[in-house]
Amino acid sequence: MKPSGIISLLTDFGNRDGYVAAMKAVILRINPRATLIDLSHEIEPQNVQAGAFLLSSQSRFFPAGTIHVAVIDPGVGTKRRLLAVQATEQFYLAPDNGLLDFCIELGIKRAVEITNHALWRQPVSNTFHGRDILAPVAAHLSLGKPLQDFGIKAELVRRLPALKFSLSEREILGQIVYIDRFGNLITNISSQVLREFAGEDDVEINIEGKMIGPLLSTYGSAGVGAPVAVIGGFDRLEIGVNEGDASIFFGARIGDAITVCKKK
Amino acid sequence: MKPSGIISLLTDFGNRDGYVAAMKAVILRINPRATLIDLSHEIEPQNVQAGAFLLSSQSRFFPAGTIHVAVIDPGVGTKRRLLAVQATEQFYLAPDNGLLDFCIELGIKRAVEITNHALWRQPVSNTFHGRDILAPVAAHLSLGKPLQDFGIKAELVRRLPALKFSLSEREILGQIVYIDRFGNLITNISSQVLREFAGEDDVEINIEGKMIGPLLSTYGSAGVGAPVAVIGGFDRLEIGVNEGDASIFFGARIGDAITVCKKK
Amino acid sequence: MKPSGIISLLTDFGNRDGYVAAMKAVILRINPRATLIDLSHEIEPQNVQAGAFLLSSQSRFFPAGTIHVAVIDPGVGTKRRLLAVQATEQFYLAPDNGLLDFCIELGIKRAVEITNHALWRQPVSNTFHGRDILAPVAAHLSLGKPLQDFGIKAELVRRLPALKFSLSEREILGQIVYIDRFGNLITNISSQVLREFAGEDDVEINIEGKMIGPLLSTYGSAGVGAPVAVIGGFDRLEIGVNEGDASIFFGARIGDAITVCKKK
Repeated sequence: MKPSGIISLLTDFGNRDGYVAAMKAVILRINPRATLIDLSHEIEPQNVQAGAFLLSSQSRFFPAGTIHVAVIDPGVGTKRRLLAVQATEQFYLAPDNGLLDFCIELGIKRAVEITNHALWRQPVSNTFHGRDILAPVAAHLSLGKPLQDFGIKAELVRRLPALKFSLSEREILGQIVYIDRFGNLITNISSQVLREFAGEDDVEINIEGKMIGPLLSTYGSAGVGAPVAVIGGFDRLEIGVNEGDASIFFGARIGDAITVCKKK
Repeated sequence: MKPSGIISLLTDFGNRDGYVAAMKAVILRINPRATLIDLSHEIEPQNVQAGAFLLSSQSRFFPAGTIHVAVIDPGVGTKRRLLAVQATEQFYLAPDNGLLDFCIELGIKRAVEITNHALWRQPVSNTFHGRDILAPVAAHLSLGKPLQDFGIKAELVRRLPALKFSLSEREILGQIVYIDRFGNLITNISSQVLREFAGEDDVEINIEGKMIGPLLSTYGSAGVGAPVAVIGGFDRLEIGVNEGDASIFFGARIGDAITVCKKK
Repeated sequence: MKPSGIISLLTDFGNRDGYVAAMKAVILRINPRATLIDLSHEIEPQNVQAGAFLLSSQSRFFPAGTIHVAVIDPGVGTKRRLLAVQATEQFYLAPDNGLLDFCIELGIKRAVEITNHALWRQPVSNTFHGRDILAPVAAHLSLGKPLQDFGIKAELVRRLPALKFSLSEREILGQIVYIDRFGNLITNISSQVLREFAGEDDVEINIEGKMIGPLLSTYGSAGVGAPVAVIGGFDRLEIGVNEGDASIFFGARIGDAITVCKKK
């Protein structure tokens, strides 16, 4: 697949210390024409699960051939592998700690362990492989170097614990997987699963046993300050509060149970 | 007017959840050469008034033909219109909730309600029109598609409440319209109004009845920790505290009254 | 030296108020093809020392001919000079308040005081020289205009107080110069100084008299929650806590003493 010249960056570095700028600088030394897009740098430090969720959710909007670099890397400098993966139409570079678990479902076209030192920045630090290994690899990849040049063929194995999920004729059981800046609670129940389960008007949604009500079409369909279940921007069942914060309203946390039942 | 290829983005999405990145991704799929500039994503959630202030203030510095996309959209998915407007040399895309009130004063060259589904991302979600409608419209507009192709001709009507403002021979009455990250209090009294009212050395400035003093040329003209009235970076009367925070110093809030009197 | 077309921006403006966007807009009016990279905008307001540290540390990764614009400017509008400097392969634009002290050590190829009004945005405000002077100067410089066209030849003098630093046969004494978002404590002791002082396994590191231990190769080499001394991403001795926050762990602050002793 031809690279698009676009490189997205997702890290837990924040935007204060210039770590992201250093990665971009290293990329621009190799490919001055790369288009650099920040996916997010405000992931909670070392929260691989949140990073994986955003990476899988937002990367699908990018043009084919985009290279996504994800650096949430508590194991930096230890023996963990660094991976370069092509899944569907996108490239993904990340440490092998669960950030790329979703690629297994997407369908991996090709995956390598990044081992070819010749394409790294020298000297390589022990503490910042994002800058010294992944950034130059992304830059070379964006110039058309084939994936197999970066290392040896690799198999991906799942690293993150499985999410709560079950589906019966009467009920879908899922969980909160992400809470966004508005306090919206995003679940692992996709719009497609929901559609196949029952009609919009025929379901009742609960969070940790508390009833929210039926599926509505948008936040504004509930009264101001009232909770609302919608298909949100992530194309998943999402619990919000109209002009409010659902995470505060429900005291909700990642992992909390969400059930969808058929109305009696 | 020829588009510049530059697209600015202003939202209340924050930078944590990848919503902005998804909008950029959608734009780059249609126009991979667009130049994307973040105007701000840290607007307080659903604060249309603050967004409108920043949009009107900062957009004027951009090259002619720049497209500004503004998404503060509490009514997303309800019947509110989406607008595309050319005012002076710039294009503006936003929901019809007051974000574009300032265009009425600027002088509208052309305005349409965005209704042409054929130029939207499909499927369109109910909760994220920034990504599914405004982003693709901005991208097509940046490639030269004329405004009238996006929908039907529209009239703009003012949506935000009027600000305090009066001008007599002895006094200007205005208000705080924005508080920046340094705690500077930005008013709706422009440098031009002030110049035409009296000479710099002939005025006294008050905030909610508390005297600040004359107009000074810069923050550093006051003692460290002292309040100071200047013409700030927004080209408006602005109250600061030298090396301090005026919003804390005065316990000030948006809407607080500012008066400028002639010295006796 | 040929400009790379890349312009980096470092300020204490934050990302909320559109000040950075206004600077970028002014640059793009003059050079629509400039590549704009945010180095950081989250420097603590008016903390020149932190800005200088990040600028000197992160700018070295950029391609030769990059222009770095730094605006932490408590003296804006007063008589302080604005400087344009070429040091090694990079250009630096900043107020003369210590931000560019490090250029003296790097080796200054050419330095001017920015005095040529003809290349500024008009009218020039008293409160935002970043937008009205430094941004247009950066844009013209990126198009190839030579440094001497922007003003008169200037000498740099050191503006910031000296850091704690001494080196004897038995001990290196340094200090904390920066604390990053993870709470890692970055010192002014470079990896090179450390290497020349003793072997990795032969040193003991202390912070304000509390023993941390030997130099380890990476954060993950310590137990979870345990302090660790490593050579970090800044290529300096750095104190962290594995999966924790060293600034909280030690109650540490900028200026705290760090000693490196030879093991007995």
